[in-house]
Amino acid sequence: MTLELALQFAQQNRIRHREALEDFLRIPSVSTLPENKPDMQAAAEWLAASLQSSGHSNVSIIPTGGPPVVYGELMQAGDQAPTVLVYGHYDVQPPDPLEEWHSPPFDPQVREDHIFARGVADMKGQIVQWLAAVESMVRTSSLPVNLKYLFEGEEEVGSPNLAAFIEANKDRFQSDLCLNCDAGILDAETPSITYALRGLAYFEIRLHGPSSDLHSGTYGGAVDNPANVLSQLIAGMRDETGRIALPGFYDQVRPLAEEERRDLAALPADEKWWQEMSGAPALFGEEGYTSTERATSRPTLDVNGLLSGFTGKGSKTVLPATAMAKISMRLVPDQTPEHVRRSLTAYLEKNAPATVRWELEEMAGAIPSILERDSDAVAAASAAMQAGWKKKPHFKREGGTIPVVALIEEILGAKSLLLGFALSDAMIHAPNERLHLPTFFKGIETYIRFTHELVGSR
Amino acid sequence: MTLELALQFAQQNRIRHREALEDFLRIPSVSTLPENKPDMQAAAEWLAASLQSSGHSNVSIIPTGGPPVVYGELMQAGDQAPTVLVYGHYDVQPPDPLEEWHSPPFDPQVREDHIFARGVADMKGQIVQWLAAVESMVRTSSLPVNLKYLFEGEEEVGSPNLAAFIEANKDRFQSDLCLNCDAGILDAETPSITYALRGLAYFEIRLHGPSSDLHSGTYGGAVDNPANVLSQLIAGMRDETGRIALPGFYDQVRPLAEEERRDLAALPADEKWWQEMSGAPALFGEEGYTSTERATSRPTLDVNGLLSGFTGKGSKTVLPATAMAKISMRLVPDQTPEHVRRSLTAYLEKNAPATVRWELEEMAGAIPSILERDSDAVAAASAAMQAGWKKKPHFKREGGTIPVVALIEEILGAKSLLLGFALSDAMIHAPNERLHLPTFFKGIETYIRFTHELVGSR
Repeated sequence: MTLELALQFAQQNRIRHREALEDFLRIPSVSTLPENKPDMQAAAEWLAASLQSSGHSNVSIIPTGGPPVVYGELMQAGDQAPTVLVYGHYDVQPPDPLEEWHSPPFDPQVREDHIFARGVADMKGQIVQWLAAVESMVRTSSLPVNLKYLFEGEEEVGSPNLAAFIEANKDRFQSDLCLNCDAGILDAETPSITYALRGLAYFEIRLHGPSSDLHSGTYGGAVDNPANVLSQLIAGMRDETGRIALPGFYDQVRPLAEEERRDLAALPADEKWWQEMSGAPALFGEEGYTSTERATSRPTLDVNGLLSGFTGKGSKTVLPATAMAKISMRLVPDQTPEHVRRSLTAYLEKNAPATVRWELEEMAGAIPSILERDSDAVAAASAAMQAGWKKKPHFKREGGTIPVVALIEEILGAKSLLLGFALSDAMIHAPNERLHLPTFFKGIETYIRFTHELVGSR
Repeated sequence: MTLELALQFAQQNRIRHREALEDFLRIPSVSTLPENKPDMQAAAEWLAASLQSSGHSNVSIIPTGGPPVVYGELMQAGDQAPTVLVYGHYDVQPPDPLEEWHSPPFDPQVREDHIFARGVADMKGQIVQWLAAVESMVRTSSLPVNLKYLFEGEEEVGSPNLAAFIEANKDRFQSDLCLNCDAGILDAETPSITYALRGLAYFEIRLHGPSSDLHSGTYGGAVDNPANVLSQLIAGMRDETGRIALPGFYDQVRPLAEEERRDLAALPADEKWWQEMSGAPALFGEEGYTSTERATSRPTLDVNGLLSGFTGKGSKTVLPATAMAKISMRLVPDQTPEHVRRSLTAYLEKNAPATVRWELEEMAGAIPSILERDSDAVAAASAAMQAGWKKKPHFKREGGTIPVVALIEEILGAKSLLLGFALSDAMIHAPNERLHLPTFFKGIETYIRFTHELVGSR
């Protein structure tokens, strides 16, 4: 019955929870603007106070070199209960262009079913939903798990201090599961769970040919051209069926299960949708897969940047001394950036001609992540959603990489469950960002149900 | 005997001819610097006065939109005698860096066997050599040809007004042969004649894929990448033997004659020389040809510039909407820019995938030129050099393109003979530009002999 009491508490306190969100939204915690530095501190203090008021202990605002991290814990569920690390970020995007807002970005206003304010969907709404859920469970003595928090303030600027911070605080953050609230669902009527993300291996390849730029009239024909060579090398990285041709590239790729393919096919994103969204004249990808599979569940190799020689207006007859490509691969379980780097290195060793020297620099890397479909966390999230929406959630994989998910898995060894309730039309990062209020309240209850499902204590 | 008289005159007037050159060198006719605009006019006037003093008629300084063209003619050799259009440019490069000059660039000084001054080798020295040769023939009543002049003042800035000017003055410039004095020989002891130049066809290819830059995580795999496609297209333009793979590309290529290959092989430029000069880790070019042949007498395809996506420091995971390559071909007789454009267009039509839209822009074009080895002009130049140096000249082809040579052939239908006496260590475009005085005087005599050889009037 404790679940029912917690849900009841949440329902009775809706106005107060919405007002708490509005308070939080009034703090312009824009991490990229120096003038908002005091607001970053104010937002951290607001969070710390909120954690304290709902009984968390060891609440602290910890310096990081950037905006502080807010920590807290609630470890009264006992040794047998799982410990969940709740991740969120309290910083928001700048509100520009201001003139396009119909109400001031830091003066939250309710119109019809939505609250409008900067950061309401990304992701102060989800943070307050979670805090409201926890308060509801604490006040009704029904919190069945242990909790720790990692609220950062620099997600919108790429979290430059986060990896070092987690590394330095490894023990403190040790948990069984990370609940990453920075997520959404397909739409208000369609719950969904993202259970896998792709990883990333990002490289810069630099080729060096002649010792300086040469005149293409004087030397052209006798001296190989690094830009032509680079093109050949890139061309050879992919075959005509869209498969990546680096040696051993697919060795660690986990095949899609039939069930996964069925679920991905059920998503509202058919070939026509992909073409319309991308604006591409025609689609192309690995033979034997749908566009949704190609973009979410299969590895890729994309040129992100190319530079060589003369790129201004007009014509300059240079035979360039160097050529550069930025090339990145999206990785799927169980690939690793290290394996892909070896695969690329082997390719270059075998195929780069003697006419160039080459350098390979790894610019960024993140492991892919997958939360098993039959894990407790996914099962709990699925059951909680089904109870709230009276329908099964969609199971999704995302093509992008969420660096903090990779960091937490790599450093802490904890998998992340992405569970949040932003809608895809929430205008994230844009003017008139908004949160759907009915979904906000449904999300609070879903977090309560999820927590209970997680320990099977319904 | 008139030849002997003219040679004698030249020998007796060496000091005066050198002094005339020094006068001309004192005018800082730097075409690229606005502050030297009055000097451009002064240099043009100097030339006009020189033509007048040696009896030329219709001498005029003609406005072009840029620095003026100096014209003149001497048409007293009769209708049966050939008319030679003498080409030169009176503008010079800027002298920077000034501090590296051992004497002021516009205060010519003689040290040992050289005159040092900006423009002395490129190409005021050759102009004065020719004028001295003509004066020697005129004063001894032994000029066997008719002469016209085209002295421009904007060669060092790419001759932006020249094509339109020649086109507008077609009739005035009508000639049987152009003598282009902007040339050199291998070294003071090694005369040489350049009888062929490569042409140029320069293109910009722009590929358009998705309607805007996309996130490579969200779309990568499902949407083709214009930078990858561009690489594939470029890679396919050349095969592994270094042959250009555009359809019909070689259709118009005139094969090298055995005699030409022998002459090119005799030049002091072996494989080791090419590698040292280019600083390339290894050489590569079309199978079956030497580096000298590849760089001078075979057509090429070089990427001159590549640009796509993100090229700054660090990593940005963009799937670029567009990709651009500047690609140029050096052409050999009897290729034309038009034919090559059709060949490239056919290649793109056949090979560009439906995932991109492509645009092809022709940025520059110039026909290749060749002066037949058995032509009167080459025979005359060869005989003149052999008389002066007591050895046969080397026969060379150059890999570069001299736009004015192509213009004069295309607009006036006249072939150009490149005949000049700059040495390869003359420091052209660099500090301490210099002219070898013994070669200067030998060159005057060679121009006299050449003129007489041209009409077989020895």
